[in-house]
Amino acid sequence: KRQALNISITVGDISPSLAQEKVGSAGSSLSFDIVNKEESKDAISRSDIVISLLPAPLHPQVAELCLELKKHLLTASYVSEKMKSFDARANELGLLFLNECGLDPGLDHMTAMELIDKIKEDGGAIESFESFTGGLIAPSTDPENPWRYKFTWNPRNVVVAGQGTAKFLENNRSKYIPYQQLFKRTTSITIPDQGEFDGYANRDSLSYLEVYGLQKVKTMIRGTLRNKGYCSAWNIFVQLGCTDDAYVLNDIEQLTHRDFIELFLSDEVGSTEQKIAKLFSLAFNSHELACLKWSGFFDEEKIGLDKGTPAQILERILNKKWVLKPDDKDLILMWHRFGYKLKNTSHEIEASLSVIGNDFIQTAMAKTVGLPLAIATELLIQNKITKRGVVIPTTKEIYQPILKELKKLGIELKHH
Amino acid sequence: KRQALNISITVGDISPSLAQEKVGSAGSSLSFDIVNKEESKDAISRSDIVISLLPAPLHPQVAELCLELKKHLLTASYVSEKMKSFDARANELGLLFLNECGLDPGLDHMTAMELIDKIKEDGGAIESFESFTGGLIAPSTDPENPWRYKFTWNPRNVVVAGQGTAKFLENNRSKYIPYQQLFKRTTSITIPDQGEFDGYANRDSLSYLEVYGLQKVKTMIRGTLRNKGYCSAWNIFVQLGCTDDAYVLNDIEQLTHRDFIELFLSDEVGSTEQKIAKLFSLAFNSHELACLKWSGFFDEEKIGLDKGTPAQILERILNKKWVLKPDDKDLILMWHRFGYKLKNTSHEIEASLSVIGNDFIQTAMAKTVGLPLAIATELLIQNKITKRGVVIPTTKEIYQPILKELKKLGIELKHH
Repeated sequence: KRQALNISITVGDISPSLAQEKVGSAGSSLSFDIVNKEESKDAISRSDIVISLLPAPLHPQVAELCLELKKHLLTASYVSEKMKSFDARANELGLLFLNECGLDPGLDHMTAMELIDKIKEDGGAIESFESFTGGLIAPSTDPENPWRYKFTWNPRNVVVAGQGTAKFLENNRSKYIPYQQLFKRTTSITIPDQGEFDGYANRDSLSYLEVYGLQKVKTMIRGTLRNKGYCSAWNIFVQLGCTDDAYVLNDIEQLTHRDFIELFLSDEVGSTEQKIAKLFSLAFNSHELACLKWSGFFDEEKIGLDKGTPAQILERILNKKWVLKPDDKDLILMWHRFGYKLKNTSHEIEASLSVIGNDFIQTAMAKTVGLPLAIATELLIQNKITKRGVVIPTTKEIYQPILKELKKLGIELKHH
Repeated sequence: KRQALNISITVGDISPSLAQEKVGSAGSSLSFDIVNKEESKDAISRSDIVISLLPAPLHPQVAELCLELKKHLLTASYVSEKMKSFDARANELGLLFLNECGLDPGLDHMTAMELIDKIKEDGGAIESFESFTGGLIAPSTDPENPWRYKFTWNPRNVVVAGQGTAKFLENNRSKYIPYQQLFKRTTSITIPDQGEFDGYANRDSLSYLEVYGLQKVKTMIRGTLRNKGYCSAWNIFVQLGCTDDAYVLNDIEQLTHRDFIELFLSDEVGSTEQKIAKLFSLAFNSHELACLKWSGFFDEEKIGLDKGTPAQILERILNKKWVLKPDDKDLILMWHRFGYKLKNTSHEIEASLSVIGNDFIQTAMAKTVGLPLAIATELLIQNKITKRGVVIPTTKEIYQPILKELKKLGIELKHH
């Protein structure tokens, strides 16, 4: 039975009206801009616990104020090098800086660690770790959308996803997939009751060998799930250079969607569609061209920007069609498959988690990112988390009560 | 008739013995390390003109000492933003900071500007500009080398060549080719008496519209020449991620050449060769696989490094076969094709330059980079260059006497 907590919630945003809209009758709102140090200091000093949902690069600024004002901090973002550097001071001050406590990273760590700890307690030795998560759209949403995808998360992060080199371990061999191969070298993953999906490798799986205590596994890969066909279509943008964020195109007021794609194609004779079909050896009625057409890339519509990097322009065009409509429902899918040895016999455990959104506000993404953070905050208030310093939810003390609460809310792994 | 100059030459290098070897009986040598400010200041203060052949990123440090000690400076490197920033001060002090005065950049500017100025003087209007240069090997050298290439220039720059995005103008439309497409989207260029070559676009051709005074042209592309087949084989390294210089592979003492390639291939069944053939849809006896085999990438030989970025490892392996042997001769090729309108009629001018090296020391590369610099220095001593500040050799005052001297040495454009 849940105890009522005597707490008050304050939501801050650079737009006070948006903050008010978000918090509704659940608490109060205020104007909050991390760049404004006085305002930020004032808001943080009047709190006991700070939950930062700012863009990840801004977290360190919040963390510094939290250290100065002695406040706990929770985020759903990856621990950056900068964040890591606050560990000793946070520990000293008795503060919890809990990060990676959303969906991915977050729920993936927690559900994986629960399985891993169970296997280890039973005397098993993990030999392979494969874990993929994706924020997709529900089958009933947008049946005509050939991408089977819409933005349910920071659009910019979707556009630049995968830049860099993916590093993982496969049968005891280190493997490196550069960006230009990432959306080609996908893995087919079948999830019971859900269907077949494409998985592409996340940037750095190797760093989780230590985090998960799996230094002896032969295979270690974390990745992202997409519906079948997404990756081969997205690969066209990657190959053409449309996702490049390193240079700015100026004076593009007059540029249309089609003009944008033409910037990356040769000047030979033929339509945009013909040139893409030729360059990528695609049929004219291919799925990939259908995706580009559906997203309006062959339209003579103005982009509506004065200037921007290719990635910013791509995001702008995609946003015209990939934005959730009020009744749209998103779908979160997570899939784990771990191999382990127990008494000299090889075993495999496979499990998945799926969450469907209520609508375009109460999305599955919002629930799976927000609820773990909310529950962790509740646990902290109840003094049920004793760890301090910069941590992620890989210890039983943290993941067990969070997973228990999530289960009550219908969010849990199903074993296959 | 050339006048004897009363000059003394001093060659400095971080290795004094190498400096002595280079200068021979033509002058004196000294130990020179730009990081050692006292030593550098002393060497520069005892000179009238400084020629910097250091790696390009080090030129600004030399330039700052030249400003402090009021010395002229010549380089064969691209003008960096930093170098550009010295223009006002150099001008004020009456100093010439002449850059881009080697082969490419250098001879390409000079030969192009001579043609452009001539066309303009005749009343013509340039409509298109295409210029490609390459440092290759002579047909007689290494007949069994399927790449038709060896390092005749900074190996590191060859390995990371083209990273970024190539920008150019084609029929009045801006075009952008990202790195992952650069070695696929090549242009076939036939040079009379030399054969057919592949050209790939240089990083930024658009910035030369202003430099060459060609703001009204419809096509503007500068590029690099390679022998047929080089680019499609090199593309394998690019696509696999072997040219990546952004992360370090540690503990690679035991890694063989073949292991290195395997890092970038999936763990599926099959030989390295089979996996590459499959990934790139190549025949087993294809030219591309022959190139990789010739360079030893399928050998079980140790790389011989403890750690390194993929690009550094790639350079290391290539250096085992791509190093010039004493009798090897290199080949410099430069090709220009300009379209122009004269009295309402369209014309085209096509010209090329070729230089063959004497041996592995007196390479065509050394001659075409070094001689323009040497001649420019001579002109400066004779007070025949009046321009001051940060300049490149695009003005008649500079290019005309240099090209005249080069012609005497057998280095000149041939019109086709």
